[in-house]
Amino acid sequence: MKRHITVLAVFLLTLVSLCLAQTDETTINEDFKPSTLNQSGQEYPQVNSQGYARFRIVAPQAQSVRVSLGLGGRGGTALTKSEDGAWMGTTEGPLDEGFHYYHVYVDSGMFNDPGTLNFYGSTRWESGIEIPAHDRDFYALKDVPHGRVQQILFPSKSTDTSRRAFVYTPPDYDKDQSKRYPVLYLQHGWGEDETAWSNQGHANLIMDNLIAEGKIRPFLIVMTYGMTNEIRFGGLRNFDIKPFQTVLVDELVPYIDANFRTLSDQPHRAMAGLSMGGMETKMITLANLDKFSHIGLFSGGSFSMDDVDKTPGFKEKVKLVFVSFGSRELENRRGRRGPFGGDPKENAEALKQAGINSVFYVSPNTAHEFLSWRRSLYDFAQKLFK
Amino acid sequence: MKRHITVLAVFLLTLVSLCLAQTDETTINEDFKPSTLNQSGQEYPQVNSQGYARFRIVAPQAQSVRVSLGLGGRGGTALTKSEDGAWMGTTEGPLDEGFHYYHVYVDSGMFNDPGTLNFYGSTRWESGIEIPAHDRDFYALKDVPHGRVQQILFPSKSTDTSRRAFVYTPPDYDKDQSKRYPVLYLQHGWGEDETAWSNQGHANLIMDNLIAEGKIRPFLIVMTYGMTNEIRFGGLRNFDIKPFQTVLVDELVPYIDANFRTLSDQPHRAMAGLSMGGMETKMITLANLDKFSHIGLFSGGSFSMDDVDKTPGFKEKVKLVFVSFGSRELENRRGRRGPFGGDPKENAEALKQAGINSVFYVSPNTAHEFLSWRRSLYDFAQKLFK
Repeated sequence: MKRHITVLAVFLLTLVSLCLAQTDETTINEDFKPSTLNQSGQEYPQVNSQGYARFRIVAPQAQSVRVSLGLGGRGGTALTKSEDGAWMGTTEGPLDEGFHYYHVYVDSGMFNDPGTLNFYGSTRWESGIEIPAHDRDFYALKDVPHGRVQQILFPSKSTDTSRRAFVYTPPDYDKDQSKRYPVLYLQHGWGEDETAWSNQGHANLIMDNLIAEGKIRPFLIVMTYGMTNEIRFGGLRNFDIKPFQTVLVDELVPYIDANFRTLSDQPHRAMAGLSMGGMETKMITLANLDKFSHIGLFSGGSFSMDDVDKTPGFKEKVKLVFVSFGSRELENRRGRRGPFGGDPKENAEALKQAGINSVFYVSPNTAHEFLSWRRSLYDFAQKLFK
Repeated sequence: MKRHITVLAVFLLTLVSLCLAQTDETTINEDFKPSTLNQSGQEYPQVNSQGYARFRIVAPQAQSVRVSLGLGGRGGTALTKSEDGAWMGTTEGPLDEGFHYYHVYVDSGMFNDPGTLNFYGSTRWESGIEIPAHDRDFYALKDVPHGRVQQILFPSKSTDTSRRAFVYTPPDYDKDQSKRYPVLYLQHGWGEDETAWSNQGHANLIMDNLIAEGKIRPFLIVMTYGMTNEIRFGGLRNFDIKPFQTVLVDELVPYIDANFRTLSDQPHRAMAGLSMGGMETKMITLANLDKFSHIGLFSGGSFSMDDVDKTPGFKEKVKLVFVSFGSRELENRRGRRGPFGGDPKENAEALKQAGINSVFYVSPNTAHEFLSWRRSLYDFAQKLFK
């Protein structure tokens, strides 16, 4: 145990000096603006043009206030008390572009930042902040026709309740009542729920923009809770896919096909997921290749030739295998064989060599976070149902 | 100023002794259970069978923790530090049945309770707690066919953006493509937004249950932001209805009629609102009686004969005037003429005498809060479009 702590300390110190080396010479631009995810009228948190975040928390009598967000391994960002009684602080370095969860510690209690909207992650509603990405146009709210995000409550016998799902329908869905659409079942990650892909992921805006530009064949997206949050980290290996597979394949899919104008055959049904939702996607599609033809794993493993060889009919039935990661995830993996069965890029290339429509996508300068997954959906959607 | 403080102090002391007199003799039942609005897996806050609420906030280093919810005028509920470092406390008396907003003060900083879901009220996402009502069955999630809550983004030229609305569609909406439906435009109150009627109000579940029991003619409900939150309390008299009236009447209504299967004539269009949304409803309907036939004001004023006489065509065009309050609001008003033009019950009776279909509803033992408005919608819906 002691040795572990020593190793950790050395690692952390190295990280600290590396980060200091990077940031010491940087001048912080004083062009901070409220984050786009702030609650109406809230001035803080703010973000500057370099990606630094600045926080302001009012708690005049507090002894210490800290924000969980900041450079890795450094315990986030400590705020200091201003003259007006508010606690303020700026991250020691720029954050990755895109969306980040965080929370605030006030005298050792964990709370949300009252300035921001909340997003479901880590099995709770958390604060969120957005660092404007250079390519944010693809998920921006634009003056184009907008589809709908429909909340449905579908009956589930296996869990003895009505379960919630959200269904994205394209802008033209209600115009031509004779038209039918392919469907993508899209899963969130561990700690999240069925709200994540709309709220954090802007899946509906990504679709609206792609459709307006004529870049994709319009399809429905169905998002429901993947029953991921009963386990905690480390319990992944014992995770039983059966309960969720039953809900998704035996209950939700038939409900969607009965209540929406879908193309309900295997060539027109896809499944994708991020992180643990990718793991679920792999398990469920491999066991149900008669139902799913297009598969996407976003930061959630890969398919090896071993997977292909062990699954009868894979080459005939699977029309697309899309595997993606944030570039920083791959840097972290360098030289290591991860828990997902080998190097994902090598795996993708092996499948391609074997004649499978295999795509490997890397999101530049992002980690295991939502900008990687927004970009993955944007790329994946353009390759679906062609 | 000093005199005001003295008067306030005497008033508060009287209130305190009154409340103590009421609660001193009460035994608090130790049958506390997690509130139904808690986040997944959270044990606190809890509610007992008498309507007391118990809170638990983890903030080991804090000097003081207080919850805003409690007996009026007493500054909420002060929590005390338990041996495990968590702060705990129970309201000094039972709360009204139904939904309550609240927040937590930690060392004078205002935060949400990490245990609960958040609800938009007071111009921010707040904590919420539910005291189970004896009649909660009418808004319960049941094993009946469920309608959808569809998030739409509609174009608004007057505000130069895409605006969000939620549209409730009944369970059979997608079954019979030839059927058309009446529409209710339903507004939230000051500080709230377009999410309130679904989240706090359970409008969709109220409708699902009424439809399943065959008690109403199915209709659509459209909920959008009433642009109420730019002003603060006291600014009501200077509130300009024009910007929202333009969005609602000139932009949203035509969009809904073009994109949903509505009955788009005046007899099949209703408007209702709670609190400030009631005030908006009154202003907008009186100016647009060619468009709205059924009107509901929930804790948001009333129609006097003066209103009727000043509005050409009122008697011919208005098919229902529904006015409701929580009983505690009327107690508070006793002997006073409120800001809404006279005694609402007398007003309702005067309209009835004049041959107008005028309904006055009182929600038992509730105040200016969401259980009053859930019950109002339940009653109002049964009288619509008959």
